[in-house]
Amino acid sequence: MKVGVIGLGYWGPNLVRNFLAQPEVDKVIGCDLQESRLAMIKRKFPGADTTNDYKALLKSDVDAIVIATPVDTHYKFAKESLEAGKHIWVEKPFTATSDQAKELIDIADSKDLKIFVDHTFIYTGAVRKIKDLIRAGELGEIKYFDSVRINLGLFQHDVNVIWDLAPHDLSIMHYLLEDKKVVGVAANGIANYYDLENVAHLSVYFDNNCFAHFHVNWTSPVKIRRMILGGDKKMLVFNDMENFEKIKVYDSGVEMESTEKIHEALIQYRIGDMYSPKVVQTEALNLGAMEFINSIKENRVPLTSGYDGLKVVKILEASDESIKNKGKFVAIND
Amino acid sequence: MKVGVIGLGYWGPNLVRNFLAQPEVDKVIGCDLQESRLAMIKRKFPGADTTNDYKALLKSDVDAIVIATPVDTHYKFAKESLEAGKHIWVEKPFTATSDQAKELIDIADSKDLKIFVDHTFIYTGAVRKIKDLIRAGELGEIKYFDSVRINLGLFQHDVNVIWDLAPHDLSIMHYLLEDKKVVGVAANGIANYYDLENVAHLSVYFDNNCFAHFHVNWTSPVKIRRMILGGDKKMLVFNDMENFEKIKVYDSGVEMESTEKIHEALIQYRIGDMYSPKVVQTEALNLGAMEFINSIKENRVPLTSGYDGLKVVKILEASDESIKNKGKFVAIND
Amino acid sequence: MKVGVIGLGYWGPNLVRNFLAQPEVDKVIGCDLQESRLAMIKRKFPGADTTNDYKALLKSDVDAIVIATPVDTHYKFAKESLEAGKHIWVEKPFTATSDQAKELIDIADSKDLKIFVDHTFIYTGAVRKIKDLIRAGELGEIKYFDSVRINLGLFQHDVNVIWDLAPHDLSIMHYLLEDKKVVGVAANGIANYYDLENVAHLSVYFDNNCFAHFHVNWTSPVKIRRMILGGDKKMLVFNDMENFEKIKVYDSGVEMESTEKIHEALIQYRIGDMYSPKVVQTEALNLGAMEFINSIKENRVPLTSGYDGLKVVKILEASDESIKNKGKFVAIND
Amino acid sequence: MKVGVIGLGYWGPNLVRNFLAQPEVDKVIGCDLQESRLAMIKRKFPGADTTNDYKALLKSDVDAIVIATPVDTHYKFAKESLEAGKHIWVEKPFTATSDQAKELIDIADSKDLKIFVDHTFIYTGAVRKIKDLIRAGELGEIKYFDSVRINLGLFQHDVNVIWDLAPHDLSIMHYLLEDKKVVGVAANGIANYYDLENVAHLSVYFDNNCFAHFHVNWTSPVKIRRMILGGDKKMLVFNDMENFEKIKVYDSGVEMESTEKIHEALIQYRIGDMYSPKVVQTEALNLGAMEFINSIKENRVPLTSGYDGLKVVKILEASDESIKNKGKFVAIND
Repeated sequence: MKVGVIGLGYWGPNLVRNFLAQPEVDKVIGCDLQESRLAMIKRKFPGADTTNDYKALLKSDVDAIVIATPVDTHYKFAKESLEAGKHIWVEKPFTATSDQAKELIDIADSKDLKIFVDHTFIYTGAVRKIKDLIRAGELGEIKYFDSVRINLGLFQHDVNVIWDLAPHDLSIMHYLLEDKKVVGVAANGIANYYDLENVAHLSVYFDNNCFAHFHVNWTSPVKIRRMILGGDKKMLVFNDMENFEKIKVYDSGVEMESTEKIHEALIQYRIGDMYSPKVVQTEALNLGAMEFINSIKENRVPLTSGYDGLKVVKILEASDESIKNKGKFVAIND
Repeated sequence: MKVGVIGLGYWGPNLVRNFLAQPEVDKVIGCDLQESRLAMIKRKFPGADTTNDYKALLKSDVDAIVIATPVDTHYKFAKESLEAGKHIWVEKPFTATSDQAKELIDIADSKDLKIFVDHTFIYTGAVRKIKDLIRAGELGEIKYFDSVRINLGLFQHDVNVIWDLAPHDLSIMHYLLEDKKVVGVAANGIANYYDLENVAHLSVYFDNNCFAHFHVNWTSPVKIRRMILGGDKKMLVFNDMENFEKIKVYDSGVEMESTEKIHEALIQYRIGDMYSPKVVQTEALNLGAMEFINSIKENRVPLTSGYDGLKVVKILEASDESIKNKGKFVAIND
Repeated sequence: MKVGVIGLGYWGPNLVRNFLAQPEVDKVIGCDLQESRLAMIKRKFPGADTTNDYKALLKSDVDAIVIATPVDTHYKFAKESLEAGKHIWVEKPFTATSDQAKELIDIADSKDLKIFVDHTFIYTGAVRKIKDLIRAGELGEIKYFDSVRINLGLFQHDVNVIWDLAPHDLSIMHYLLEDKKVVGVAANGIANYYDLENVAHLSVYFDNNCFAHFHVNWTSPVKIRRMILGGDKKMLVFNDMENFEKIKVYDSGVEMESTEKIHEALIQYRIGDMYSPKVVQTEALNLGAMEFINSIKENRVPLTSGYDGLKVVKILEASDESIKNKGKFVAIND
Repeated sequence: MKVGVIGLGYWGPNLVRNFLAQPEVDKVIGCDLQESRLAMIKRKFPGADTTNDYKALLKSDVDAIVIATPVDTHYKFAKESLEAGKHIWVEKPFTATSDQAKELIDIADSKDLKIFVDHTFIYTGAVRKIKDLIRAGELGEIKYFDSVRINLGLFQHDVNVIWDLAPHDLSIMHYLLEDKKVVGVAANGIANYYDLENVAHLSVYFDNNCFAHFHVNWTSPVKIRRMILGGDKKMLVFNDMENFEKIKVYDSGVEMESTEKIHEALIQYRIGDMYSPKVVQTEALNLGAMEFINSIKENRVPLTSGYDGLKVVKILEASDESIKNKGKFVAIND
């Protein structure tokens, strides 16, 4: 298999490195307009080829194109790649609009090509372990999902903090709560420095007794990456800043003796043991690359496909409308 | 000075104890309908008197009435107390509606009586230290205020989690950001167990480049009580779960070279030293009682007055309208 | 049952309060030479009697004497109490020398009286839970026991930091490792301020493949209270500064394929799950008082008896000899 | 400058990488007996040469030899390198005995060659910052130095846990307390699995009111790397497991009103502010390589020289004698 990587900025070199390490991949060609980036790739990865001509790359015999360019160019490169008959890997968020996402999905479907959206966190040991726990019924029914991802981070010039940081957490939410249906969102926040929000809060409503919230911030003095999942059996905290005990499962919860007597103090809480399962530490990007390659070889939908990318983009798109209207509820048809 | 305490439930005994400890207070009379509560007070505080007749208490020569009953009875007891010529201390939240609060303020003003609302946190060493830092200009202009108060806590039967937990944080916000004007709120959340929300997010909009958010939850497996204040000079984190380093001031922030070049990556962040000022540990309730007594003696508005109580109630009231409408923005006229 | 408490300083009032709360106790008499301490007891505990004459107290009909005076007076009060036919409760450390401890044990045995030594930590939920885990074989054979108890604490005038802080941890060690035999100790440290050590390290040697170490310090800027128990099956960390997850059990350890191939890298380590059992929060002092009373009623040796007190004193005594000789090993005959 | 690296095991590749990155270095030649290690170096660092013949390497025109082999071979390779006229870089600990260290120092001195011992931590931002604080008098006189370095780590086959882990901390101690004279050591511990200790405690005595202690353990379920420095002005905690606040300086301490009244409770403690200075994050190994190269160019003693290596080896050597004799004090002549 031959793979072309378009966009050799911050993330591109990692992609080149990972595809070079795949046994099924014979050749990796890096593509960028900046000669300095091409030179860096040549120096770091003597085994890789480079080009500054993406049109030529699309005409070559590469099997797949990896797109690691700014969000607003995803659609253009993705469309041309699909039309050239290439499978595509697209960095998150998938596209700048849901219409673009739908069109790309249609093209890929009609040509039997694969779209892989790089929702990297789905391939981490921690998220896979949480999925296992939910599948095994450990947590029971999830009542709420709370996510915080804040730090002192680089501002993006083209998108606000929701578009930059929330896709990670939204993709995790969709993966973990795949049986639940999103019905709409509300977003609040502030743009303290220029016209794009640097602090934001995103509420996601589901159709049946579940609620999710995402707090993202580029201007926090402390770095927090934490999720809380409130199950009706157990509750789980995923603290991604911990080196060792990333996941904690609490055998704690709310006990309700009877719904009739709600006004007579029959809601109690229970505190029990906690345990922290071992989390496998393998590079998520490597597992992602394997999944992409396998989905092509086995001709099947990858775990993080264009459909998953579309779901996230729909929420991001709705969040824009909401945050510009001080948190107005915006419905989503999934 | 003589003080009557109406309501001897969870918090009442602490109030009896604190007023007994004030040198200016000669007599404390506890009042409750339940004889078992009166007996408990007699046993624990042999120096206190008790009665089950609040009407008689109001007719007696007590100078002040302390009201520690459920929220929806605050108005009734407060009004009768004021009409009987007594100064009043009311537990938070002040009243169940802003109209009640306004009426009480009017009565007190017309009779030159004091209303003290027990926003206890204003009297803690930590909040006073943060106020000092802001007053001294250490943080610069506050750009955002973020508060989290979650744990596995007792459900209230009469109010949702915002009314139960957020008054603490809203009173701190008003105290710390006293120069800023609230223009409206949006609230999201879910009621997983009965008709009152157990998870909620409250956004508060200001009129000029500032934003606040409050996350409250009765059903979190972990207990978090943390505030982040993003100043344009420094940033502050107040972690009330820490025993020793409750306040951390970060000499970190966002640097913007020029607003013109916003789209050319000129927003940088800066990370500098951190310091944690020593926090005085005195019982907040004692300081509150002293402030109440002194405001009466000196015939002045107390630090946490009916006006402060009203500001909080206005937000709580608006949050109800918003949360029932999936986060609809509700304007507030301060 | 009637109980006299001699010594109403820092800890005495807690003892008065706890014995007053025991249903079997009809009367508690506090005894101290300072009238101000007696007045404080009268004020706080109207149900208690007081006296400044301990000789009269010993002649009265009290059943038991609780001794909460400085260490070097324990022997005198304990001996007179036993000779007056009273059961005794003695604060830790039991006595100033092991000879004193042995003599008191002999007197008590000859008169069929009970000696209770207040090794309070044995009655905490955390230590009892750890004992349960060890009894159930969860940790396997304990290979090492490591204890740290450091903070910025009050200097004692009569004893060094080992005598002040280590008795807690030594009593826990004896309780948890009751099947293991101590053979000797070595102690190192420094007296930075006057002739009594403020930093010290105490090593305890056992007769069979086990080792314990105690780090105590009155001059640490941070407060640490942590024990690590290295079992050959699992390992346990007890962090007493945590409010919620005091005990963590790690399914981690050292794996040795064969002792022959030791020099060929066959020692591996294994990291598995961790769990944190729920710890019951009841006041240890109350459970201690109940155990003392029950041991008298049931005429049996209490859980923390004079024998346990003696074991701790032997180690403290040996530590004195060792630390004055820069860590010389001092043998102990248990 | 040309550099040869002997020993391409765990650490060797990092050394090759770092010397390749130095502008003054034209050529790096890796040397190992195992062909697989040479192949790995060729693959990872196409710019490096390799050889399996160290004798030939010593005869070549390389200027310096980097020795990253097991401890007991350091002397042999170092001696031959010096005799061949090469400057040497030796991994820690410098040698297996102090006599070896002295002989190497003599040879280097007589031939005007440099010995650099790789006490890497001296080149970290955190240790350099602590040194700056001490130099500036921030902490005052250091009264005690307490170090903990424990985790679940790989057993070494040739040396015990003191020789493996303590050199890091001993070198830091010597660097930070360079004005203080070590007079002797005492070591305690246990070898639970084979004849080399896996848990150890090392006490270091100084000649004047200062004391240091080192706790090292290969079999701890938790990873702790922490130092406490008790100064008579301020106290410092260096927690190397923290990502952000590695150093905390506490304006806390012990206050003594008068030494006469020591027995009348005049020792108080004071708790003040804490601050955490920003720590520069540059790779220590790179700074070390620069220092080695500069010491050669400038013909001066490097910051971490053979003399520093010798000081550490003397303590390690003495610790062996002490630990085999249950903590017997072993004097050291510095």
